[in-house]
Amino acid sequence: MTKDKIRKLTPFQQRWHNIIFEADTPAGRLFDILLLIAILLSVVVVMMESVAPLQLKYERLFTTLEWMFTIVFTIEYLFRVWCSYRPKAYILSFYGLIDLLCILPTYVEFVFGGAHFLLTIRILRLMRIFRIFKLVPFLNESKQLALALEHSRRKIAVFLFFILLLTVVLGSVMYVIESSYNSGFTSIPVSVYWAVVTLTTVGYGDIAPVTPLGQAFSALIMIMGYAIIAVPTGIVTVEMSRLKNESEVDNRICPHCMREGHDSNADYCKFCGSKL
Amino acid sequence: MTKDKIRKLTPFQQRWHNIIFEADTPAGRLFDILLLIAILLSVVVVMMESVAPLQLKYERLFTTLEWMFTIVFTIEYLFRVWCSYRPKAYILSFYGLIDLLCILPTYVEFVFGGAHFLLTIRILRLMRIFRIFKLVPFLNESKQLALALEHSRRKIAVFLFFILLLTVVLGSVMYVIESSYNSGFTSIPVSVYWAVVTLTTVGYGDIAPVTPLGQAFSALIMIMGYAIIAVPTGIVTVEMSRLKNESEVDNRICPHCMREGHDSNADYCKFCGSKL
Amino acid sequence: MTKDKIRKLTPFQQRWHNIIFEADTPAGRLFDILLLIAILLSVVVVMMESVAPLQLKYERLFTTLEWMFTIVFTIEYLFRVWCSYRPKAYILSFYGLIDLLCILPTYVEFVFGGAHFLLTIRILRLMRIFRIFKLVPFLNESKQLALALEHSRRKIAVFLFFILLLTVVLGSVMYVIESSYNSGFTSIPVSVYWAVVTLTTVGYGDIAPVTPLGQAFSALIMIMGYAIIAVPTGIVTVEMSRLKNESEVDNRICPHCMREGHDSNADYCKFCGSKL
Amino acid sequence: MTKDKIRKLTPFQQRWHNIIFEADTPAGRLFDILLLIAILLSVVVVMMESVAPLQLKYERLFTTLEWMFTIVFTIEYLFRVWCSYRPKAYILSFYGLIDLLCILPTYVEFVFGGAHFLLTIRILRLMRIFRIFKLVPFLNESKQLALALEHSRRKIAVFLFFILLLTVVLGSVMYVIESSYNSGFTSIPVSVYWAVVTLTTVGYGDIAPVTPLGQAFSALIMIMGYAIIAVPTGIVTVEMSRLKNESEVDNRICPHCMREGHDSNADYCKFCGSKL
Repeated sequence: MTKDKIRKLTPFQQRWHNIIFEADTPAGRLFDILLLIAILLSVVVVMMESVAPLQLKYERLFTTLEWMFTIVFTIEYLFRVWCSYRPKAYILSFYGLIDLLCILPTYVEFVFGGAHFLLTIRILRLMRIFRIFKLVPFLNESKQLALALEHSRRKIAVFLFFILLLTVVLGSVMYVIESSYNSGFTSIPVSVYWAVVTLTTVGYGDIAPVTPLGQAFSALIMIMGYAIIAVPTGIVTVEMSRLKNESEVDNRICPHCMREGHDSNADYCKFCGSKL
Repeated sequence: MTKDKIRKLTPFQQRWHNIIFEADTPAGRLFDILLLIAILLSVVVVMMESVAPLQLKYERLFTTLEWMFTIVFTIEYLFRVWCSYRPKAYILSFYGLIDLLCILPTYVEFVFGGAHFLLTIRILRLMRIFRIFKLVPFLNESKQLALALEHSRRKIAVFLFFILLLTVVLGSVMYVIESSYNSGFTSIPVSVYWAVVTLTTVGYGDIAPVTPLGQAFSALIMIMGYAIIAVPTGIVTVEMSRLKNESEVDNRICPHCMREGHDSNADYCKFCGSKL
Repeated sequence: MTKDKIRKLTPFQQRWHNIIFEADTPAGRLFDILLLIAILLSVVVVMMESVAPLQLKYERLFTTLEWMFTIVFTIEYLFRVWCSYRPKAYILSFYGLIDLLCILPTYVEFVFGGAHFLLTIRILRLMRIFRIFKLVPFLNESKQLALALEHSRRKIAVFLFFILLLTVVLGSVMYVIESSYNSGFTSIPVSVYWAVVTLTTVGYGDIAPVTPLGQAFSALIMIMGYAIIAVPTGIVTVEMSRLKNESEVDNRICPHCMREGHDSNADYCKFCGSKL
Repeated sequence: MTKDKIRKLTPFQQRWHNIIFEADTPAGRLFDILLLIAILLSVVVVMMESVAPLQLKYERLFTTLEWMFTIVFTIEYLFRVWCSYRPKAYILSFYGLIDLLCILPTYVEFVFGGAHFLLTIRILRLMRIFRIFKLVPFLNESKQLALALEHSRRKIAVFLFFILLLTVVLGSVMYVIESSYNSGFTSIPVSVYWAVVTLTTVGYGDIAPVTPLGQAFSALIMIMGYAIIAVPTGIVTVEMSRLKNESEVDNRICPHCMREGHDSNADYCKFCGSKL
């Protein structure tokens, strides 16, 4: 995180800061709600634009709306930078980067056609919803979920690394077995893609083994995948269960018998009955 | 829950109340069993009606039976209201609403063709089966399951909210990658549908990536889905395990402050400090 | 279990009993191993018989082998009954019923063609393998697994009951939405089949929604299925974890301080240090 | 593990040993990093070789590169044997066998065409990455994962054994039901493959039931698979949770009998009764 100094804002800037960054005042709340609606609408417009019959009919309307939303969000972004206490920190923060990413595709469109469809990334801005509506319990829950994933990050990374090695080897073996008889296994990369589709139990069926040996080997892979799919579930469950237990254990010590392990709702020591 | 007064029933109404709402008397039990059979039969009739060859052959029979069942269930519904101690409460209760929903489709059929197939919703009335046959342990188990889901409700809501944002973004990226080369990814909404099908590991294969970049990106999504599918499992498992532990908790009540929830190794009340 | 008296066997019958039912003597062990090989071979023959090109070439050989195996297993079955201490109990036991089921299909073949392919049920007789090779730890593990499933039996039954109701309702709704535009959803039973395929995340793709409304509704079902699939996993995990803990806790009480909760490898009380 | 004596290396051999087997010296580190790059490149070359258009264009380049890498890895392998303290132990170790396997396919190519595609097995050599970059926490995590799988090995083996029996029986039943009406279920082995695809919820859809009875039976199998998929997850989760708890166990050592493994709430050694 960049540690630029907190700069002084003019009263005018301060007023805008409260409206844009906070949701405590009526004006700030209104601003946030209007923003959420604008985000949702702009995503819906981009989605509808991608539907061919609608695009043919309302092309001009869609383009106009898209530009309108992009201009509004660009102004909003510049305003956020302008009235932020620490502009650099905002720009480089998670939300700041998303805010920027959400206006870029329209401009990139000039260079790469089709890029403006990525405007749907704006939907990520809806993550502010919990903060705006003060849904504290939901915020807590999402923090807990994030924490559990964060704690199991390394285990999951190791796991995915082995899955990667495994799928490359399995894919290659299947390529050697099937490629001569099957129009699906056209190359090793495609076979690796098949191995991922199979191990994760997604199983599109766009590529499927046809030789007896290939089918037997696939059956083996799937049954292996059975045991493998248990691993990340185990990781996350154990981590969540640990977090749960930790957050529920009190670390108070009884002043009389010096024993620990009291519940958080306990007023008296459960071992000697003296006041905690 | 509406808190209308408990009204007085005539002895005649009371007798019917016991037959229809209770399953303690032989008559009440017989009524419930006949009702279950009628529900099952009426669902089977609707199902068979949807099978084209059967429909052609027995059209008149099916229509007659369907109307018969609807009339029977309508009379039953009116009876339930008539002999209920608190008619409003019944009408607005979970079972009351289902009972109403189970007769409406036949009448709605006049307005929207095809609606009568929704009569299969009647199968939900079978949920009464545990109560009727006094399957207390099953009732308890289903309450525990419901409780575990209820407790993890917020975590699951947060989780599903992020899944929603994620699928919109992933679907859009795939649309940009694949739409020019693939007849499947016709629009962003369809691509979002594909992202849901992939992340949940359902994997129909009606839409599947064909470009190398698309396949590589899909493989990434699937491997991510591997870790993601672990999250709800973790949530529910932890919640169930907590409920299990709680139900094994001591049921001693403090003789002084009358509060419960003591650990099994406690010697003194943790709320008031008196000996347990 | 039938409680017929233990009958007296002649020494000749006893000797055979030891060979057939026990695996302690060299002869008994040899018999069991030969039996396992015969079972495996007979299953392989039936499987190969179902492969059209092999069937054309070796039809007579297969029929001969199949009859040979059936006759051998029939004689073995009669022998088992003849030299059993409690013939009725054996006939009605789990293994006795499977032993009978494993010879019937050849005879039923005269009445229903194709029935002999069910001879592969003989593979279930391989379950004896753990007992024969004295794989005690494996036997214990399989008992633990069976126990965990046994204990969660009621919860899983309740769960599957709700899944059944749910799939009927979801299938009917999809039938109403899709049937006019989709050649896949031909009737409600087929739509219920689709709902099962989708909720369990199998996702064949033989039937898939094509209307926007149908795809949106399917996406909802899948995301719901995400949370639902967590339920049986949670049930079984909690049950297994409980079994594990129970089997590891000692119920010895310290004779001095009377406290419990000692580990099974403890020789002295961990609270007061006196001998357990 | 073979216990051949540690032989004496000449100073020259020792220097090479440090470079090749250790990653502590700058030279050793450089060697390992160059090796990792060479491994990755050689895998990429083999993968690209399998893509038809690339193969047509760069056939000679690919063959040259492949031979070059194989020669380099062969020399490296011989060097490893030559400067190892215990050559036999290295050759028979896990990494030694993989190192050998990674050069064989090029030579086997002369005998079996297509074998050289198995060179992608070289990617397994990347497993050294954690050791080279001293990613100790990752090494620990992967050891924990391996331990959890190792401990649940027997339970998973029993589970997979029953799955095998189950799929053979289910496949045969489906073969009897479907084979006359469905071009997919051509033989019992293929039907067993279908049963594996279905039970594991992969669901390619290359083979799918078409008869009403087959679809009903499949739905049953899938719902059964729902409960079954919970079993390995339960096994692994419980084992991981146990390992986690154990690793949180007290690491106090009894000052008297020097034994470990005491609970965190123990005041006295549970083995000899002396004060901890």
